[in-house]
Amino acid sequence: MEFLEKLLDRPLVVNAIFSVIAFFLSLNVLPRFYPLFIKAGLCGKDMSKRVPPGKEPVKVPEGLGVIAGAIFLCVMFLFIPVPFWRLWMVKGEEEFPHHEFVEFVAALLSICCMIFLGFADDVLDLRWRHKLLLPTMATLPLLMVYLVNFGSTTIIVPKPLRMLLGHDLDLGVLYFIYMGMLAVFCTNAINILAGINGIEAGQSFIIGLSILVFNFVELSRFYPESAQFSLYFIMPYIAVCAAILYYNWYPSELFVGDTFCYFSGMTFAVVGILGHFSKTMLLFFIPQVANFIFSVPQLFHFIPCPRHRLPRYNPKTDKLSMSYTKFQMKDLNILGKLFFYLYSVLGLIDVKKRGEDEEFIECTNFTIINLMLRFFGPMHERTLTILLMFIQILGSCIAFFIRYQLASLFYDVVE
Amino acid sequence: MEFLEKLLDRPLVVNAIFSVIAFFLSLNVLPRFYPLFIKAGLCGKDMSKRVPPGKEPVKVPEGLGVIAGAIFLCVMFLFIPVPFWRLWMVKGEEEFPHHEFVEFVAALLSICCMIFLGFADDVLDLRWRHKLLLPTMATLPLLMVYLVNFGSTTIIVPKPLRMLLGHDLDLGVLYFIYMGMLAVFCTNAINILAGINGIEAGQSFIIGLSILVFNFVELSRFYPESAQFSLYFIMPYIAVCAAILYYNWYPSELFVGDTFCYFSGMTFAVVGILGHFSKTMLLFFIPQVANFIFSVPQLFHFIPCPRHRLPRYNPKTDKLSMSYTKFQMKDLNILGKLFFYLYSVLGLIDVKKRGEDEEFIECTNFTIINLMLRFFGPMHERTLTILLMFIQILGSCIAFFIRYQLASLFYDVVE
Repeated sequence: MEFLEKLLDRPLVVNAIFSVIAFFLSLNVLPRFYPLFIKAGLCGKDMSKRVPPGKEPVKVPEGLGVIAGAIFLCVMFLFIPVPFWRLWMVKGEEEFPHHEFVEFVAALLSICCMIFLGFADDVLDLRWRHKLLLPTMATLPLLMVYLVNFGSTTIIVPKPLRMLLGHDLDLGVLYFIYMGMLAVFCTNAINILAGINGIEAGQSFIIGLSILVFNFVELSRFYPESAQFSLYFIMPYIAVCAAILYYNWYPSELFVGDTFCYFSGMTFAVVGILGHFSKTMLLFFIPQVANFIFSVPQLFHFIPCPRHRLPRYNPKTDKLSMSYTKFQMKDLNILGKLFFYLYSVLGLIDVKKRGEDEEFIECTNFTIINLMLRFFGPMHERTLTILLMFIQILGSCIAFFIRYQLASLFYDVVE
Repeated sequence: MEFLEKLLDRPLVVNAIFSVIAFFLSLNVLPRFYPLFIKAGLCGKDMSKRVPPGKEPVKVPEGLGVIAGAIFLCVMFLFIPVPFWRLWMVKGEEEFPHHEFVEFVAALLSICCMIFLGFADDVLDLRWRHKLLLPTMATLPLLMVYLVNFGSTTIIVPKPLRMLLGHDLDLGVLYFIYMGMLAVFCTNAINILAGINGIEAGQSFIIGLSILVFNFVELSRFYPESAQFSLYFIMPYIAVCAAILYYNWYPSELFVGDTFCYFSGMTFAVVGILGHFSKTMLLFFIPQVANFIFSVPQLFHFIPCPRHRLPRYNPKTDKLSMSYTKFQMKDLNILGKLFFYLYSVLGLIDVKKRGEDEEFIECTNFTIINLMLRFFGPMHERTLTILLMFIQILGSCIAFFIRYQLASLFYDVVE
């Protein structure tokens, strides 16, 4: 009994134990759901695998992120009482910290909404307007809690801009728009860098680990409470994400689905916002930001964007090579032409001209996956994923360097 | 501006306006989703309609409750700030009522979880253990908030039992088990009384209206805050439920799906628990409780239970008649035989004997829908729904009578 009390007084340890259980539970439970998903038509073909002649490609169950998300929610529901247990049991001494409690509940509400939305998207193929409107709605509870608990929408202006803007600046409503967009960005950024085995789960896993390391460092620095709050969410997240990655790794026996990207993005946004490190969190998204910026011409349809932009599979060599989009130069508007020339001059895309008057143009899709294949040539799917994971880790190293070394150039950092 | 302030000071009026908007929004949005649902394979055949010879039965989109639930959540997200707006804007005067705020967020978390779970059930056809385990999980946030905010698990003992148990009794953990089971019961009770056009949405609509009336009465009595809290949820609920009912009414152009039953059940449980009228709320479930008790022999498989127990359709007369289950007496265990004899002696089921030695038995399924058809003979589907709605309204009248007239027999009621 005394041992249990001591354990409950260390909620981080309890959370770690819960996370380990969540990991093994997910490992065990995920494969059991494959038949249900395939029966429900939630499955896809793996387009980068050899299909024996005369056979159908294997159906891979899709959207299993929803199971990981549900396990995460259950674990968190069971965990919530732990940090508060003493205040619950031993009443009267202190006021119950409702303002901390509501952060937990609101964070889970936002995450739950997002898992639900992601699953609806996997099942129903929602339109773009739903994909932007609904995540914004889902962040509302979070923003309300932020407003009530912290209220401050004042930011410290970076040193180089202080001549213009002064020492601090009240962003007001703009600050909430920034936070709302953070969630929309996180969810969609992971969703865009996709298409090969293990990449969605892999990048999320590395971002999760980076946040974990950052929080552990901060635990002994200035904001231990915020870091602790963030750790409560990120440890179980990493656990279920690891289980998903295990099955999603080459050769994938499951696809994570939009659910997983939404779930991951919202979890990151939640810990970034309520843990007060949204800027640092964005630094861990360097490869996603790069991919997003690189993709802008296709995302906003200045250059035609095919339904899937994943690399092309060559069954003879079992390797992946760049995928192309095809169009006529005269169909591009002025911005499209500008982007096209800029990217081809910089050597970021491969261009082929076809037809008698070279009126048909084929150029590689605007993704960093294609960019890697352009730099390093065709490679095996697993190698490509490992390469992209390496870039993600590199991105996190740069992020830590910026956060802990360069930040003093822009802010007065107390060391 | 002054008008706006005056309006915001009357959150019930704002909530009513939001509810009207939610109703028209749902009316407008629901049909737009039919193609998405049918494309995703979320559809069913209406088994009680004439099919022209040589034609396929029309596909009816199923699980539209999820859209109603999503609209409800969005409306509630936008509404939450309203009751608190003055405390947010005008700071410093009073402490922000975090304990009230967390009730809203936790209630929405439980409802959101349940909509998500219901939709997963519609898509994946979950097993029974998930259907019992996950609603219990989904009520955890609610129970935590209850524990923190009210803490008391003591009940007043009804007068006739006071000789045995004393004036009050601390139920402790049992009380939380009761509340957890309340949610599981509400969701499944609605789900069991189903099978004809308009019945799920119709019964939920009448239960919702009954709660509305009860809350309005209580608003001027002892617990105006609790009644007000409940009204904030029940008005938008009634609005989206009315829109669903409009399309689900005979002849149905949509089926509500498990999502809707889960959503409805959890909303009722939430307002019952946090509004402190769970016993009165259960009184509004009289027909559902009756149907549940009547169904017990089949639900627990003492008597064989076919996949669907809905009434049989006769295309010649366009009327519904009783549906039967078929078995051999020797396959029943002792409890099964007991139930069978009891029900047939009481005349609650119709029994036919087949075969040379009358070894095959056909008896009507154990539902109050079949019971109505036994009492009143075959009838048109719409008539049957109206009859059941009438019973539901009668149930609510009895509930009000018990609550406001008979309660003084059991409790010391302050009038």
